[in-house]
Amino acid sequence: MFFAPASITCFFTPEFRKSPAETGSYGVGITLDKGVRARPADRLLVNGKEISFPTVEYVLEALNGRGVEIETDFPLGCGFGMSGASALATAFTIAEEKRLNYSFYRLADLAHEAEVVNRTGLGDVVCQVHGGIVARLKPGCPSTARVDKFLWRVKMDVVIMGELDTEEMLESFDFSIGRRCLKDFLRDPTVNNLFVQSKRFAIETGLVEDVRDVIEAVEAEGGMASMVMLGDAVFAINGYNALKEFGQPVEVSLNPCGIRFLGL
Amino acid sequence: MFFAPASITCFFTPEFRKSPAETGSYGVGITLDKGVRARPADRLLVNGKEISFPTVEYVLEALNGRGVEIETDFPLGCGFGMSGASALATAFTIAEEKRLNYSFYRLADLAHEAEVVNRTGLGDVVCQVHGGIVARLKPGCPSTARVDKFLWRVKMDVVIMGELDTEEMLESFDFSIGRRCLKDFLRDPTVNNLFVQSKRFAIETGLVEDVRDVIEAVEAEGGMASMVMLGDAVFAINGYNALKEFGQPVEVSLNPCGIRFLGL
Repeated sequence: MFFAPASITCFFTPEFRKSPAETGSYGVGITLDKGVRARPADRLLVNGKEISFPTVEYVLEALNGRGVEIETDFPLGCGFGMSGASALATAFTIAEEKRLNYSFYRLADLAHEAEVVNRTGLGDVVCQVHGGIVARLKPGCPSTARVDKFLWRVKMDVVIMGELDTEEMLESFDFSIGRRCLKDFLRDPTVNNLFVQSKRFAIETGLVEDVRDVIEAVEAEGGMASMVMLGDAVFAINGYNALKEFGQPVEVSLNPCGIRFLGL
Repeated sequence: MFFAPASITCFFTPEFRKSPAETGSYGVGITLDKGVRARPADRLLVNGKEISFPTVEYVLEALNGRGVEIETDFPLGCGFGMSGASALATAFTIAEEKRLNYSFYRLADLAHEAEVVNRTGLGDVVCQVHGGIVARLKPGCPSTARVDKFLWRVKMDVVIMGELDTEEMLESFDFSIGRRCLKDFLRDPTVNNLFVQSKRFAIETGLVEDVRDVIEAVEAEGGMASMVMLGDAVFAINGYNALKEFGQPVEVSLNPCGIRFLGL
């Protein structure tokens, strides 16, 4: 079984290029202790159901895989990088099952390509490959993107209110401020400033309107919060009681590892 | 507490340059589930004792750290990358203790520099940063080295017969064949070929003499084995009974993660 961590994007700026391998994003993402588990199967099953999942189907087709059984800790489409994690875990599962002996970055690049082609993500896979609080300094597929990261012991709560469509959002909003948030985060890389820059991104893109009341409620309680990009969801520190008013908070921890097998 | 995995070098070719950051090696290393744990302390303690450990002292000095308590699963100087792992775990422990907020690669580069300056290793830290079966494709410190890797579920046994001095070995032997072993491994990246190339390296450098009888005993039993570089030690698959004749075998598994914190 392979595990790929969920990831929360704090802020980002898309970079569209001719090829999926060059396409990606600047930004910061956090990998979590929750995520996606995959194991070989005869067909594609997600949480026990046959569903249409083009990003994963793309990987299966590329590796000539029969299927994969995927279990996700978060719902799809809510900003937790479940499509990237599923693509990544699928690539490693099929490669192992078929004894392809493809290298780590070859499989990771394939998962990134699957995301870009299907417009489900631009940087989740890069983040999920490395693990930690991952800063994408140069966009692109995992083998060419440049990253740095931070291993901080962070516990957070997240609350999910609904879905957002990544493709639609990418077409409707201006995310250029993300690169400045990245720069200003790296000047003073602390948990506090990560929330400052995340909230700034949510405000300046205009996306904050969906979750403004949640963030304000957490702050009134003395915590810090911002919006999960791109999802109708909030991540927070010291905000459990405030979050409770808006949904069922889920406790998550930073996971310092990327995609990996479980057990031996 | 931070954990840095032990690593076994299968084959390598040193690359000496002017600066420690550019110095490193080509080669392949495997990170293990055993390794080094470090936590803050008033002085430098290794497995409960005050010892001279210049590689770790270099890191402590650079970060102005008081000390660190280190626990190692293998003895120092036997080829399991204990100095690199100790340097790495120390860097992250002190950075956290002092809230330095240095980035992952800044700390990793410091650990690499400590190794190079003290001639205790040339590629262990790069390997221990990434985790897995790590191929160092371009030498240098972690932030500039280029790697690819493989996540294979491998269980092995290792047996340690004695120590080897890395610095002395580096001066006395020709390791240039390592780059060819790397190339030939990458052409057919399988567990079997990893042992083929590892053994070829041991033979062509002449180092095999120390452990030839151990390798032959494992092979006579139907297993595969080669020499841990640089240590008077052997790693093997399906060789437990043969290894028993030469010392107490230790079962190890491949660890797919690099340096990380334990607990939250």
